[in-house]
Amino acid sequence: MDRLPGFRDFYPEPLPHHDVWSADARQYIFEKWRTTARQYGFREYDGPPLEPLELFTTKSGEEIVGQLYNFTDKGDRAVSLRPEMTPTLARMVAAHERNYKKPIKWFAIPQLFRYERQQKGRLREHFQFNADLIGETDPAADAELIALVIDTLRSFGLTAEDFVIRLSSRNAWHEYFKAGCSDLAHEYNFFQAIDKLERATPEENEQKLAALGFSLAGVNAFIETGAPTGELQSILDNLAARGLKDFVKVDYRVIRGLAYYTGVVFEAFDRKGEFRAIAGGGRYNNLVKLISGGKVDLPALGFGMGDVVLLELLKARKLLPKFDSHMDVYVLIEDETLRAPSLKLIHDLRGHGFAVDYPLTPAKPDKQFKRAQELKVRHTVKLESDAYVRVRNAASRDEVVTGMGDVKNHLG
Amino acid sequence: MDRLPGFRDFYPEPLPHHDVWSADARQYIFEKWRTTARQYGFREYDGPPLEPLELFTTKSGEEIVGQLYNFTDKGDRAVSLRPEMTPTLARMVAAHERNYKKPIKWFAIPQLFRYERQQKGRLREHFQFNADLIGETDPAADAELIALVIDTLRSFGLTAEDFVIRLSSRNAWHEYFKAGCSDLAHEYNFFQAIDKLERATPEENEQKLAALGFSLAGVNAFIETGAPTGELQSILDNLAARGLKDFVKVDYRVIRGLAYYTGVVFEAFDRKGEFRAIAGGGRYNNLVKLISGGKVDLPALGFGMGDVVLLELLKARKLLPKFDSHMDVYVLIEDETLRAPSLKLIHDLRGHGFAVDYPLTPAKPDKQFKRAQELKVRHTVKLESDAYVRVRNAASRDEVVTGMGDVKNHLG
Repeated sequence: MDRLPGFRDFYPEPLPHHDVWSADARQYIFEKWRTTARQYGFREYDGPPLEPLELFTTKSGEEIVGQLYNFTDKGDRAVSLRPEMTPTLARMVAAHERNYKKPIKWFAIPQLFRYERQQKGRLREHFQFNADLIGETDPAADAELIALVIDTLRSFGLTAEDFVIRLSSRNAWHEYFKAGCSDLAHEYNFFQAIDKLERATPEENEQKLAALGFSLAGVNAFIETGAPTGELQSILDNLAARGLKDFVKVDYRVIRGLAYYTGVVFEAFDRKGEFRAIAGGGRYNNLVKLISGGKVDLPALGFGMGDVVLLELLKARKLLPKFDSHMDVYVLIEDETLRAPSLKLIHDLRGHGFAVDYPLTPAKPDKQFKRAQELKVRHTVKLESDAYVRVRNAASRDEVVTGMGDVKNHLG
Repeated sequence: MDRLPGFRDFYPEPLPHHDVWSADARQYIFEKWRTTARQYGFREYDGPPLEPLELFTTKSGEEIVGQLYNFTDKGDRAVSLRPEMTPTLARMVAAHERNYKKPIKWFAIPQLFRYERQQKGRLREHFQFNADLIGETDPAADAELIALVIDTLRSFGLTAEDFVIRLSSRNAWHEYFKAGCSDLAHEYNFFQAIDKLERATPEENEQKLAALGFSLAGVNAFIETGAPTGELQSILDNLAARGLKDFVKVDYRVIRGLAYYTGVVFEAFDRKGEFRAIAGGGRYNNLVKLISGGKVDLPALGFGMGDVVLLELLKARKLLPKFDSHMDVYVLIEDETLRAPSLKLIHDLRGHGFAVDYPLTPAKPDKQFKRAQELKVRHTVKLESDAYVRVRNAASRDEVVTGMGDVKNHLG
């Protein structure tokens, strides 16, 4: 019996097979995400992995259903495994925003799901670091959020030579569109055409733009020479003040696919262009109002950073640490008459915060020693009697014999 | 639009409503679980939240389907949100056990799901700390696992006055059953009757037992006077050697409902008997073989500890810490000409690991000061110029003026 296609098993390292994923790397990534978010004053939240289907169609329209892991539950409800976190966040914020000071700074690490029939071999779930800032229209909020993206990636050892934030604005494109087309009903089609520029052929791009009354040459000229809008310049200045100038550039090719973005948008890319976007986000000032049925109207912005591309990038740049058992101490039990006091010592050391392992059943001394080596413990410990203990530093091979109560002081 | 019935929203504290759950308490519980498991040498793993339905029916039979959150997916697969972790663990271990030294000591913190039509208001998901020990038959393994349950609960501040492990054995009941009934086909019915003893009336118990050829008086006498089996005595001695004698007692009323347990079983209960079981587990020596279709045969045991009962217990015993924003520093920006160097300082302090917040936009000094108080920061920091900074200890109200680069040394 195997797992479902598109789902992942996470094993402890070293990994037994190329087809499984590292639980250690996943936890390493989650801890960095959580730590950086907290340094920025973001608070953790979470919602259900399963939501009413309507929560996602309200935002993105019925056409999204083809990409959802949705179904009818036993209570005849149309439900879906969440494809993204923002609608849940908007629902939660709308329900209780009065109890929180603005701006609200929240983060989550949800597992997200999708189901596209045609894409065999593609993952159907991933984890995503989501951070959102709600209740502030000033570009200072956009800068704070983008700084969080940058410092999160820097916390893994990535530098300005490894990645860049491509910063753009739907407002800039809105002005460009208005100057060339008076029918705002076509604006989203135009945004979609811009979003696809890098993935479609010049002929396709020319054709799509011409249908809307634009030329590819004109669009390309705007991308090449368009000046930063006032809000983009404000964000650039803010990030420069933090010392993050080299991590960001204006790039009007970025516009983001989702319908609900309203202003500044951005994506993080590796400089070599080897991978898909590492992170992406932007402003969605109308979404909370939409999700709450007009009851709550709050400006908002956020980003998502998935675990899959990030892990690929960290592997390629050799920035993943080596994960082992993280054990501190192995207690050797060579004399079985000393098992009971050994268990007492093991329990005391664990109580003092040390990670301790030992042979559960009688084993030959060389087998025990080998196990200690495999676990890469820093110290082995062996009772010489029920009062004296030999502590050995695995690296230096220094040994000391000490009383039971003093062992912990020799494990530094 | 609301969340689905039986699912939880997790908000940052202070909680806005009695109907939502604390993301801070959840994270606090997860971190204690993870830390204690690592001290015991358990490694983290995880599997998909969605599995083939067959994985759960193989183990527990078709009758379990009525309690599952199962459905048919878009690829016409019979699938289910996982109701428990053990089948996934058995599947993962069976697939790659050769790559891991025995005993395998693994843990996970999965979200689990169930769907019972009739139970309104009942939760349909919870999180569960799962730890399992695979590849060792000796009762020393059972003792190690039970010690982990005890030390996990102790890490929250619970003592031997708050909870006890009720230790039992299906082997003991197997011997009792064999002495009174020769038809082993009825044994699981007998185990079910024992499992229900405390929840059914004496008349119901008498009737069920009589149908199998036993008397309630006889069963009660065995519960009152039955001596620990050899393996139970071995576990008691092992735990006593660790200093954990007061946390465990033999109690033959415990037998566990699930069909697949094969030997020692146990449950953790609060001493006052106010709550459902805090944790439960036991040996399942045949499950890996069953799940792997006979390919891999490994003895195993494990336990599960849910977040809901544990949280209720910690609240009742007043053992939950007070959760606040956990911010270290609030940077006051009273002179807007100093915003740029303030941003630089904020960025530096975050880079040194401090959690720092500040007013995103210009705000009156008293409003900023109030925000710093709400966030319960330990220090406020204010630039006096682009070179000198005033650091104020919020508790002692001591102030010091220092250079930009030295601020971090005054935040101890």
